[in-house]
Parts: sequence; structure tokens; C-alpha cells
Amino acid sequence: MADITSIDSIRAALRDLPQPDRAAQDGAAARNGQLTKPPGALGRLEDLAIWYAGWRADPRPAIHAPQVLVFAGNHGVAARGVSAFPPEVTVQMVANFEGGGAAINQLCDAFGAHMSVHALDLETPTADFTEAPAMDEAAFVAAFAAGWNAVDPQADLLVTGEMGIGNTTSAAAIAAALYGGGAAMWVGRGTGVEGSALEGKIAVVDAGLRRHADRLDDPLEVLRCLGGRELAAMAGATLRARHLSIPVILDGYICSAAVAPLHSASPAALDHAVAGHLSAEGAHAELLAKLGKAPLLSLGLRLGEGSGAALAIGVLKGAIATHSGMATFAEAGVADG
Amino acid sequence: MADITSIDSIRAALRDLPQPDRAAQDGAAARNGQLTKPPGALGRLEDLAIWYAGWRADPRPAIHAPQVLVFAGNHGVAARGVSAFPPEVTVQMVANFEGGGAAINQLCDAFGAHMSVHALDLETPTADFTEAPAMDEAAFVAAFAAGWNAVDPQADLLVTGEMGIGNTTSAAAIAAALYGGGAAMWVGRGTGVEGSALEGKIAVVDAGLRRHADRLDDPLEVLRCLGGRELAAMAGATLRARHLSIPVILDGYICSAAVAPLHSASPAALDHAVAGHLSAEGAHAELLAKLGKAPLLSLGLRLGEGSGAALAIGVLKGAIATHSGMATFAEAGVADG
Repeated sequence: MADITSIDSIRAALRDLPQPDRAAQDGAAARNGQLTKPPGALGRLEDLAIWYAGWRADPRPAIHAPQVLVFAGNHGVAARGVSAFPPEVTVQMVANFEGGGAAINQLCDAFGAHMSVHALDLETPTADFTEAPAMDEAAFVAAFAAGWNAVDPQADLLVTGEMGIGNTTSAAAIAAALYGGGAAMWVGRGTGVEGSALEGKIAVVDAGLRRHADRLDDPLEVLRCLGGRELAAMAGATLRARHLSIPVILDGYICSAAVAPLHSASPAALDHAVAGHLSAEGAHAELLAKLGKAPLLSLGLRLGEGSGAALAIGVLKGAIATHSGMATFAEAGVADG
Repeated sequence: MADITSIDSIRAALRDLPQPDRAAQDGAAARNGQLTKPPGALGRLEDLAIWYAGWRADPRPAIHAPQVLVFAGNHGVAARGVSAFPPEVTVQMVANFEGGGAAINQLCDAFGAHMSVHALDLETPTADFTEAPAMDEAAFVAAFAAGWNAVDPQADLLVTGEMGIGNTTSAAAIAAALYGGGAAMWVGRGTGVEGSALEGKIAVVDAGLRRHADRLDDPLEVLRCLGGRELAAMAGATLRARHLSIPVILDGYICSAAVAPLHSASPAALDHAVAGHLSAEGAHAELLAKLGKAPLLSLGLRLGEGSGAALAIGVLKGAIATHSGMATFAEAGVADG
């Protein structure tokens, strides 16, 4: 696959999507039918194992090298009071990630994932999208490429997370632009916005939708005009994972919104991804429904950082461990029902 | 705590229930409020960590030694065609557990749990409960004590699982006896019973309820007359865990039914337990509602063995890892919202 150097190169990567290995998928399904359990008794774990086997081209796969990428960006729209936290928190939290003190660090340790944090031009916030496109083409391509290039080709599972004060506002704007329904349907309280501040957040999204109305038929323009660097990077990493046949676990609302433009541009673009969890951020259920994804977990998380998806690594590891490690009826000498 | 040598000793253990350490719980709640995340952003993980801290009497606890106990028993009622599998499968699956080939073995490996399997007089099935109490008092006390004695006092988390052809029939009978509503409400397809066989399973439960109608006001008599050795052992292990301040993750329908008599006998008896998952076995949601428990996972599992609860060990480990490992706002130099 060529490098990401232009919007056209992103469009080319979206046209040329690798598919899962059908023979490995069929082999995994056949193996699943012989394991020492009643048919279907492991529920969704069975589907996950077969899905993962197809993408890894291995009917009896293992997970050895999960990668978690945390992207951080600053948002011009944060100046409009859309967050309960000040913008300085983005860079402070990057230091916390680097120092090992954030939630995502602990979850990566718990589930054996390699994590890295990528601060994207924090000193230069994106433009306030009520006034101009969040990113010009060069900035958008650079952010997308940062994600694309951050994926380790040796990884066998990818999670992308984010940190960026103001980015639930971006996410809501992207969802509203792609799916309609108006800002109020897609805006939630983020890290803790309530009352008149929530009304203000809705107004900001509405203003962004009006400002860029003539560009919103193009999903990549939606991401460029209303997104942020960390969202573009998450989309870039997710698309690169597809080209490397690395399955992806999606995180919550912001992650889902970041990759939704890929799905709008090419409906099969997220077939290599599962939804790690249902976020408590208001409209995530609707967004996942638009993506055709059922979440693995629903525990009321709304932190970001990739935390919900990292927790779901445990579920996927359990699925692969049972699939690849269990004895068959014949091996165990157990009578089949 | 004295040994379990009689039904009276079980009743005594149910009267004398240790409570969580309130100071540790309060300390954990205070710590939770200082961690580098918006308030409540880790959702249910935060509640889990505070709950676990209370039972472990440590405001910043760790999970080092999860124990999984798998109990196996044979059921006289299996002769009535209530299962899609023959009774020989119980002993075959015990060999599979011992050989490391079952689903629960893989999940224990994946989540660092120590597992042991306890075959309970497999050569002597319980009585067919449509004809007589499943267990006489001596057999019931012995099975309960087997569970009680199997708990490792050094464990810091307990899961109980089971194997026993016919035991969803026992579980349904126990639930119907404790909560009413009739057999049809509580009987599910188990490992794969359908059509007229399902009708037959309902009739068997109804017959058991009629046979023992005069004893069903007493929850321990419900467990003795309609249960099985593995169910009595799960109840015994769960009650012992309470006396050792070891938190418990409940598995699916059979596990929930096995411990429900403890809850009926003493409403606080399961305060040290969370529900690991919602089973696909039909009436599990209703049963969890009776116990006042919300499941951590809902992935369509219906295997037993403790598999759903073992998978939930990952969730609890994630909760404890974040709670105990994260930096506070002050430690990380992050501005609090």
C-alpha cells in the first residue's frame, strides 16, 4: 500500500480494501463445531473467534501483540465553552499517559497491550469549525497519515483512543453531518457539560453544520471540516489496520464518529472492526446502529482514551483462547449431543 | 467459622454474615474521586472497585489469586430425557477439565485464575426429584461441605462453575420453588432441548414441585429436594467465601439458582457477589432480577462451567487495575474539572 500523501491517496486506500481469508474463516467455523461444548453455547465468543480467524488468515489464531494508539489533539472550538475542562488538560493528560498514570495505561498493562501516545500539534489547535474548516487539506492529510503510520505491522489487534478537550463536540458534528437528525440528537454531555452549556454546545454544532453545508456530502470533507487531528489519525490508523489485516476494536462515541466517515465512503470499510463497548455518551447507541455494530460491553464508561475498547481486549482474548485452546469431542473422548 | 457438619451448621453460617469494611470502602470512594478522569467516567468499573475494596478491607486493592471451582454431579432426573446429552457426558467432561481441554480451562489461563474440578459422587446420581428428595440430609450436607471446604482462604476472588447433565432442570425447579410463576416460566432449553422434549422438561419440573410442595417454604429444603450435589457445593463455596471476605462472581442460570436459596434464607447473603454475565438460558434475566443483580456481560453464553463468570474476571481486573493504578489529579499535575 502506498503512503498517505494526499486526499486522493486516502480515497485510493478506501477503494482497495482487503477482504478476510474465507478458507481460514471456514476452517475456524468447522473447528468451532467440533469443540467440547453444545453448539452455540459460547454465544458471541464463537462469532468473534471466526471473525478474527478470517482477518488473521488462521483458522486457529492467537493474540500476542495488541496495540493501543492514543492520539491527542487540540480543538479551536474548545474556546466556545463546550467542555467542562480547560484546553490545557489535553497536554497535561498527554504527560499523564507518558508517565503511566491514566486509565488506559492500567488497562493496557492488564490485557498485555503495547500502548503509545501521539500528541498531534497540540500547540496549534484546529480552527474553530464554526468559522472555518477545522483543518486545511495539508493538516488533515498529515493527521490522517500520522495515524496510518503509527500502526505496527506486527500487531495482531488494534485499539485507537483519544484525548482532546472539545472532541465530543467534533464527534457530534460529524455524526450529525453524516446521518442528519440535527445537532440536539447527537450532542451529549461529554466530560460533564450540563444545562445552558449543553445548549451552547448544540448551538456550536448547528453553526458548524451551517458553515460547511456545501461540503458535507463528502465524508472525508466532513472529517476535515468538523473533525480534529486525533479523529483524523484514528481514521487513518483504522484504515491502515485494514490494509495490514489487523482486526480493530472500536472505542466509544468519539472513536465511532472518527471512523464513521470511512464507513460512509465505503460501506465495507469497517468490516475488520468490532464495537468494544457502548459508551454512556448519549448518542453512541444510535451511532453504532448506523455503523451496524453491536457493542461487546455496556458498562457505562465515557472516558475515551480507548478505555472501553481496551477492556474489550479481554473479551476477545477469551474468545480466541477458547476457540484455539479447547479440545474437540474426538480429542477429549466426549460424546457429541 | 465452624465446619459444615449439619443443616443447622449451614443455618448458623447464614445468620452470622460478615459485612464489608466501611472504612476501606469509604477510602476507595475518596480515592476514586481524585483519579485523573471526569467523575463517573469509568462507569460501573468505579462501583466494582469500591465494592471490591470494601470486601477486601483495602482501599487500594489488587487481584492476585482468583480461584475457579468447577463442581460436577449426576442427576437422577436425567433419566427422564431432560437433556440433549447422555449422562455419561458428565464424567467425560470431568476428564476434559482435568486434561485442560474445556472452555473453562482456557478462560482460567487467559485471566490468571487457579482452577480445580471436584467430581461429587458421580457414580451415585441424586434421586429423581419427581420421586424423592434429590438428596437426603447427609448427602446434601456432604455436598454443601465439599464446596465450603474447597475454597482457598488465600484466594482473593471466587468463581464457581458446574457440570452436570440435567442440571438446568434442577435450576429451573429451584427458581420455580423459590419465586413461583410455574415451571414453564423457568424452564429453558439447556444444552439444546426443543419441542416435545422441552414440554417434557416442564412436566418434570412441575412434578417435582408437586412432590415436595410441603417442604418448599424452606430455601435449604428447596436446594436439598430439587438441587444436585454440584449446586449444593456452589452454594457452600459461595457462603464460605463470604466468611473469608472473598468476593464472588456469579456465573449463569445454574449458578444463580444454586445460590438463590442463600438469598432467600438471608437477603444480604449475596452482597459479596456480582453477576458475571447474563446467560442465554431463557429465564436468567428474571432470576438475576430476583437476586437484585445486574450482569457485567451479556454475550449470549450458555455453557456453564463458570465460563461467563471467568470471562468477567477480566472486567473486574480492569476495574481494580484502573482504581489502584491510576494517578490522582494532584500526582499527575492535571487540572480538575
